Amino acid sequence: RSIRFARNLAEDIEFSAEDGYRSEMDFLCRVVEAVINEGATTINIPDTVGYATPELYGEFIRTLRTRVPNSDKAVWSVHCHNDLGMAVANSLAGVKIGGARQIECTINGLGERAGNTALEEIVMALRTRKDYFEMVCGIDATQIVPASKLVSQITGFVVQPNKAVVGANAFAHTSGIHQDGILKNRDTYEIMRAEDVGWSANKIVLGKLSGRNAFKQRLQELGIAIEAEADLNEAFVRFKTLADQKSEIFDEDIIAIMSDSAAAEEGEFYKFISLSQHSETGERPKSKVTFRVGDKETSSESEGNGPVDASLNAIEEVVKSGAEQLLYSVNAITSGTQSQGEVTVRLAKGGRIVNGVGTDPDIIAASAKAYLSALNKLHDPSQAKLNAQMTP
Amino acid sequence: RSIRFARNLAEDIEFSAEDGYRSEMDFLCRVVEAVINEGATTINIPDTVGYATPELYGEFIRTLRTRVPNSDKAVWSVHCHNDLGMAVANSLAGVKIGGARQIECTINGLGERAGNTALEEIVMALRTRKDYFEMVCGIDATQIVPASKLVSQITGFVVQPNKAVVGANAFAHTSGIHQDGILKNRDTYEIMRAEDVGWSANKIVLGKLSGRNAFKQRLQELGIAIEAEADLNEAFVRFKTLADQKSEIFDEDIIAIMSDSAAAEEGEFYKFISLSQHSETGERPKSKVTFRVGDKETSSESEGNGPVDASLNAIEEVVKSGAEQLLYSVNAITSGTQSQGEVTVRLAKGGRIVNGVGTDPDIIAASAKAYLSALNKLHDPSQAKLNAQMTP
Repeated sequence: RSIRFARNLAEDIEFSAEDGYRSEMDFLCRVVEAVINEGATTINIPDTVGYATPELYGEFIRTLRTRVPNSDKAVWSVHCHNDLGMAVANSLAGVKIGGARQIECTINGLGERAGNTALEEIVMALRTRKDYFEMVCGIDATQIVPASKLVSQITGFVVQPNKAVVGANAFAHTSGIHQDGILKNRDTYEIMRAEDVGWSANKIVLGKLSGRNAFKQRLQELGIAIEAEADLNEAFVRFKTLADQKSEIFDEDIIAIMSDSAAAEEGEFYKFISLSQHSETGERPKSKVTFRVGDKETSSESEGNGPVDASLNAIEEVVKSGAEQLLYSVNAITSGTQSQGEVTVRLAKGGRIVNGVGTDPDIIAASAKAYLSALNKLHDPSQAKLNAQMTP
Repeated sequence: RSIRFARNLAEDIEFSAEDGYRSEMDFLCRVVEAVINEGATTINIPDTVGYATPELYGEFIRTLRTRVPNSDKAVWSVHCHNDLGMAVANSLAGVKIGGARQIECTINGLGERAGNTALEEIVMALRTRKDYFEMVCGIDATQIVPASKLVSQITGFVVQPNKAVVGANAFAHTSGIHQDGILKNRDTYEIMRAEDVGWSANKIVLGKLSGRNAFKQRLQELGIAIEAEADLNEAFVRFKTLADQKSEIFDEDIIAIMSDSAAAEEGEFYKFISLSQHSETGERPKSKVTFRVGDKETSSESEGNGPVDASLNAIEEVVKSGAEQLLYSVNAITSGTQSQGEVTVRLAKGGRIVNGVGTDPDIIAASAKAYLSALNKLHDPSQAKLNAQMTP
């Protein structure tokens, strides 16, 4: 029995019955009873296709726990998918009605198809409705928004503005009557506060004239630790370069600079140096990209449908990766076009999928950086493990 | 009494008790009883701040309907917000447990803050779980995805890929075990089919060599009606121009061409003619934009942080709108950089907020078109009514 074998090697063994919610109850009871007897300590009952409704799913878990004789020897866990938009409500019903004590969820609700239960919504529902759920979880909610941004940047999956808790508009009150209510009494329309989940109120921070100390202090406030003096100096140079290009430097800009620096430290094989491009209505756009391949500097020119396409073609002419491009997306890091552009490029080759991210006030340059960053990941075999596919 | 006054003017009078879910039950019962006596025919009980959970909200509606003596004389309606991610589940509980028969919802779940109940999730939950809800609604589900795309394009609010039903990944099975299951038996992992909600399976349609008839037929299949021969000819010219720039023309490209054409017919005051831009690492990007202002052609040159910024600065130097730029976003209409870029620019001025959308294989040109399109809306007073703010 694989359960017993595993139990000899580890403390906590989780047994997960895929698509358990649509299984035949009698059979599932017998299976769960057997695996608990063999030493399983966590029993997970997924709604793999997102078919459940809260009442039905909660009752399903409750019935299982009642009918399995040794059910108290395991922690019960829920794992819901969001195909019908009810993953969060279903998970919470599994806890409230069903008595589950583990919720499997993901940041930004990422996952197969329409995704899994969103961690941020679960955490804030439990906090906001403690009166009803009578339960606490140990998560530091102020890390929710930074974590959400990081995940979105790494995966290239955007968070829509009207996403609960972590969407850009989640705490924006636009209609007049709501704004009036907020001004009179914050509680009127706010059941949770933006700062509780890590939205930073202090938006404008630094400018061209800001010194090294101000920069260092802001890094600390943002929770970015820099140990070596040399690294700080390098980051400060990047900051000054950016400050010459745009008037106000926001927290998001600093985070972008720092994650670009971190990427650079990983020992890039391809490295962006410079770019020159031109487009004119009625002509094919042209671009020349200069970049390092290993130790060698190389320049390449190409045409394309647009200047971005031309730039990526120029790189591809040298690299000849043959990778398929799955996604190209641009985010303005703050707002408006004076801000930095953050470009994500997703490439697929030989069954592997990688994301590259590049930032620059010029979105053409940001695109070239993103493409080179993705190529680095395809090139470096040690990155392969980071790109394992998401599991059911 | 305003209710009685209204009742003399219209058949169906809806009374909505803002934040009714957090109101005192006894007081709310008396108010509802009174307004029904005065002629209100629909009673709406919003959860204005998204505080409810399904069980509590369903019971709240049920209790109200039980306690209000004349409750059977009105249709009960639910209106939920998604702050804790449970708007869909709450609305459905209002129907199932509470006996409501009207659900107020929005396409893509747009609305104040984290948004309202998503129409597409409600429709598909009722269809998929007819066994449980025992209810039908008259909506043609195959129009869901086209409607979602249209709303996203007009508002500039992106739909995240892992959004239920209408997200780009909602029907994508990426993990190996799921793909295997689908191949063996579609029902294994699919509780609804992509084509049921209007995802088109037929992705590649037309190319450079496609003729006028093929184009016309595809338009009909996409549900786009063109009456005048002249309009068809004009659209076909745009199609051929695009086909010269990119090898494959997807449905999304055609929809983009057509909505651009439709915008053009609205009698633009500002109109894009051409653009020439250059950027080079270490220099300030420069752009020259030529466009029509009323009947007059004008050219303007400017610098900026990036080529997009430079182009919009060039336009602004002539127009001097002084509008604040709230949003700049780029979508690749299909995927990859060979596709057309679709740019949305959101501007605010004097309390009005407008969106402009522009498409072009060159994202710099698409950006200039989007900016001019937004300026047209700010310029044309007849558009003001279309840009009213969303209501609570």
